[in-house]
This record gives sequence, C-alpha cells and structure tokens, in this order.
Amino acid sequence: MKTYIGVDLGGTNIRAQRFTAEAASLGRFDVKTNAAEGPKPVLDRLVTAIARVMPADRNEVGGIGIGAPGPLDPKAGVVIKAANLPGWQNVPLRDVLQARFGVPVFLGNDANLGAMAEWKYGAARGHNDVIYLTISTGIGGGVISAGQVIGGVRGMGGELGHTIAVGADGPMCGCGQRGCLESVASGPAIARRAAERIREGVQSRIPALANGGLAGVTAETVGRAAAEGDRLAREIVAETGNYLGRSIASFMHIFNPSIVVIGGGVSMIGDLLFDSIRVGAQKHAQSEAYWKNCPIVPAALGEEVVLLGGLALALEAGR
Amino acid sequence: MKTYIGVDLGGTNIRAQRFTAEAASLGRFDVKTNAAEGPKPVLDRLVTAIARVMPADRNEVGGIGIGAPGPLDPKAGVVIKAANLPGWQNVPLRDVLQARFGVPVFLGNDANLGAMAEWKYGAARGHNDVIYLTISTGIGGGVISAGQVIGGVRGMGGELGHTIAVGADGPMCGCGQRGCLESVASGPAIARRAAERIREGVQSRIPALANGGLAGVTAETVGRAAAEGDRLAREIVAETGNYLGRSIASFMHIFNPSIVVIGGGVSMIGDLLFDSIRVGAQKHAQSEAYWKNCPIVPAALGEEVVLLGGLALALEAGR
Repeated sequence: MKTYIGVDLGGTNIRAQRFTAEAASLGRFDVKTNAAEGPKPVLDRLVTAIARVMPADRNEVGGIGIGAPGPLDPKAGVVIKAANLPGWQNVPLRDVLQARFGVPVFLGNDANLGAMAEWKYGAARGHNDVIYLTISTGIGGGVISAGQVIGGVRGMGGELGHTIAVGADGPMCGCGQRGCLESVASGPAIARRAAERIREGVQSRIPALANGGLAGVTAETVGRAAAEGDRLAREIVAETGNYLGRSIASFMHIFNPSIVVIGGGVSMIGDLLFDSIRVGAQKHAQSEAYWKNCPIVPAALGEEVVLLGGLALALEAGR
Repeated sequence: MKTYIGVDLGGTNIRAQRFTAEAASLGRFDVKTNAAEGPKPVLDRLVTAIARVMPADRNEVGGIGIGAPGPLDPKAGVVIKAANLPGWQNVPLRDVLQARFGVPVFLGNDANLGAMAEWKYGAARGHNDVIYLTISTGIGGGVISAGQVIGGVRGMGGELGHTIAVGADGPMCGCGQRGCLESVASGPAIARRAAERIREGVQSRIPALANGGLAGVTAETVGRAAAEGDRLAREIVAETGNYLGRSIASFMHIFNPSIVVIGGGVSMIGDLLFDSIRVGAQKHAQSEAYWKNCPIVPAALGEEVVLLGGLALALEAGR
C-alpha cells in the first residue's frame, strides 16, 4: 500500500504529515521555521521534518507534495521568491529533496494546494468549479474549473489576491503593485484602516482590546470588537466584506463557479464578515445567475489544509 | 464527409457560413439584423440565413455552432438577455433551431467563440493557455486554460470585460455595475473621455475628424487623430492601453497565459494602442515571469472570427 507525505513550508511553521491514499493520518511532525536564520537552516529543518514522518521502507512512499509560498514554478519545482522566507530565491526545492529522499517530489503554491484540499476533502467536495481564497497576512487564491486546477503555462496562475480591487492609486500591496485585493482586504489592510480612523479621532474599543496601543491593532482585535458591537469595527468589517464581495463578483464573471470557499485567519471573523461578502457579491454581480446557486462558505479544513493539499497533489501527480 | 455551419448572431449583422472540418468555406450568407424590429423577425432572418447555407442533404451537417451576445446559458442553449438585441429574453435558441433543422445545434457566447477561433485558426494557434479580448462597443472575453475553454458550471464564464478595472465609484458600465474594464476601455469609453476633455477646453483635431461635432466622436476618430500625432488623442490611447494593460496583468496572475490576443474594432487603432497595453501589463505584473514569454498580439481573424468559432464549437461539441 502506497502512502503519501504532505509538507507545509510556511513562514512560521514547517509541517510534515504522512497519509494513506484515503487521507488517514500516519503521523505528523511540526517545527518552527525560524525563517530569519536564512535558507540553509530552514532547508535542514524541512529535511528533518520529512525524515521524521518517513517510513522505514521508502519505496512505500508514492510521493511528497510540498506547499510553499509563491511565486514559485511548480513545473520546474523551483521557489522563485518567498516574501516570508528571507533569502529564498530560485531554490530548486524539488530536485534537492528528490535527491535527498529518492522519492518523487511535487511542489505547489500553498494557496493552490489549499484549494485542492478544500475541493477533495473539505467544503467544496463534489463541486467541479471552485474559487478558493485564503485571507491572512496576504491573500492567496486557487481555482478549480471543470475539475482542473488552473495553473497556466508555468503553473503560476490562481493569484486571486493580486488582481485589481481599486484604482492604480490604491494602497501599496506586498507584491509591489497598488490596489490589489490583498492591499485592501488582508489582515494588515484591516488593521491599517482601523488604526487610521482611530488616529483621526473615531471612538472605538479596538485600542483597548489591542492593549491600548494602536501598533497592536490586528484584524483579530477588529473582529473581536465587531463581535462586541463596536461601531467602527463593524464598519471596517463591512467595508472589507464589500471589497471581497466585489472581487468575488469579478471572479464569478470570469469562472462561473458553483461554490466560493474562504479560509485563513481573517475568515475567523465569521458571520459578520461572510454576510458582508455575500451582500457585496450579489450587489456587484452582473446577473443573479452568477450568485444564485453559488454559496460563499467558510473553509472546512484548519491548519492541516496545506498538508492535505500536498497529499492531493502527490496523489494527482502520481497518477 | 460531414460539414459544419457557423452562425454569428450580432446586433448589426447575422452571418452564416458552412465549412468543411478543415475550415474550408462552402458558402456564406449575410443579412442585416435590424434588431430593433424585435425577436420574431430577427429569428426569422436567422433561420433564413442558416437555410441559405444548408446543403440539400441535411444529414451531411455535423452541427451548427451559434455565437450570440451574452449573458447566455450555453448548456441550456438559452439566450438569457442580449444588450444589442431588444426583446431577447430567455430565448431557447438551441431548441428552436434544432426543431427547425433537425441538426445538432450548439450555442456559445460570441466572445468565447472568438477565443476558440483565434486558438484553433488564428493568432493563438499552438498555445494551450490563451487570453482573448474583443474590444468594440463592449469588451468580450474568452479564456483557454490547459487546452480547455473556461466556461464554469453554467458556461457563463470568460466575461473579462466585466471585471474590476477601477473603484466602485468608476464610470457606469453597460452591465449596470461601475468600474468594469468595459466602462473605461471600450470604444464608447474612449469617445466619452475624448469628448469630456475637449469640452473642458483641450485643443485637439478630434472634432474636425468627427465632422465638427462632439457627438460624432468615436474611438475610430480618436485613433485616427492619434495616428496623425494629435496630443490629446495620444494621451487617451495611452490611458486606454494602461487600463487594458493593468487588467491584463491581473489576468496573467489568474491564468498565467502564454499569449494574449486582442481583437475587435478598437484594436484597429494598432501599434500606438498595443505598445501602451504592453507597457501597462509589464508595469502592473507582479513579476516578469508573467509577461516575459507572453506576447500581447492583435487578433489574426477578421469579421469571420465568430463564424470560425461556431465551426470550432460544433466540431468540439460533436466529438
């Protein structure tokens, strides 16, 4: 019986988990990334994490599927650059690990793997046309259309967070452009808007929840304040939902999906955010045919989403 | 030997053409749509046009592929609504024509058919990941990803003209939304911006080319003035190219295409426009990996593009 290893190379944690083909866990190992130490120690920890879940007989392993931050080239197996992994530039991760373990290795954008996981094992099971967004420090995306993951010629597609949300005079985005969806609806964008309004004198309990300091305001404190009925926090959550909903309406025009799944830390704000997203999508779609039979739902999988995506990638690539 | 009929149901002309499977023409018939007369006479003319290219032995016809304005439901064969065909609402065109001719009929969005035609017979031959835009009164789109036309659950995808180009306070779009790509980069948007600046007092030879009247300004007069070196016209062409380029950068992030093909009347402005589009896409893409090996080129097919798309649709659907 073949087994498969999913790996999540994140800016904060490295995780590795071995699965059966039916997604039953055969063991998991987590370790802090300590990304600031640079590529070499991080790569060593990655190798260690994989080794810890490797069975005695390597021939038993059908493949290793690794999710890493983009932009990366899945077809070449190369991490081109990774915002949260300082020093990672054109790292041929697939070949390095394949040489080390003698097992087929597959590399994918972590958000694309998240989309595959929600599609195969999570909230989008049974659908063929899926939009997936993961909203935290950045906004990652993944699309399944007619049962195929949208990758494009080099597999670099699916970057829904880096599509136009507002004009070219919009907020600066982590990608170097202005006005991307990520620049108006990520966790830091939410915190930034809250801090701006408070600095302008708007009364709010957000600073108290953030231990008094504006520097400590996060999307999470905004979400908590909104849940407690704070007016400013509710306004900001509603604005964020409207930005996301308007972008999702565009994605509906492009992909005509049957479901939209949203995960990531910011999605934990919950119903207040999702209701605004749904209203925004309905308001900005050009016809109800796009949203009427297309629910917008929270992700079903938690921190294991990229690991399960790694399994799905290894299973699919190994077929 | 099976033959195939392509049909272009447009707001101005109805065209029907019969082809061999190798796209050799076996006859074509064109007639004015006279759309203002309403659905019944238009449908009669459509039937007549098809009858004129129908061979004596109908069993010879492998299929009829019809391109019509969207939004439409290709899977149900229904024209939901058509901006340029007054009174067309939920017309079950496929079933009507299939009953009339006893031949398999396939319905598709005209821009999606345009994308298929450029892919199979035009500028994108040999590519598997194609973005197609057709820019005239509106902006239509079509996408081929990994050799599959992007349609989505009801086949209503590919509407690239109705994706966000600027904020929700942007110009009103024909679709009822604000700030869509079509609202800033279609022919009427170009004409509108030119007329606005001239009304504000900017000197230009555009009005002279439009026979003196601001009401007569079109994208074509702006294009001609730009070719003659008119400063305002060049500015407006450059702005339009930048809007298109910024949106194309988003489409590159979503689809990672290997070629972008642009057709439609506005594309006839030529190099001045395409150069601005290319600069805009490069400026707004998050990494050169997206645009470096992805040429942005004019469409190769002319007014027969939807007819050839109908052939491609009938061939593919009939397989």
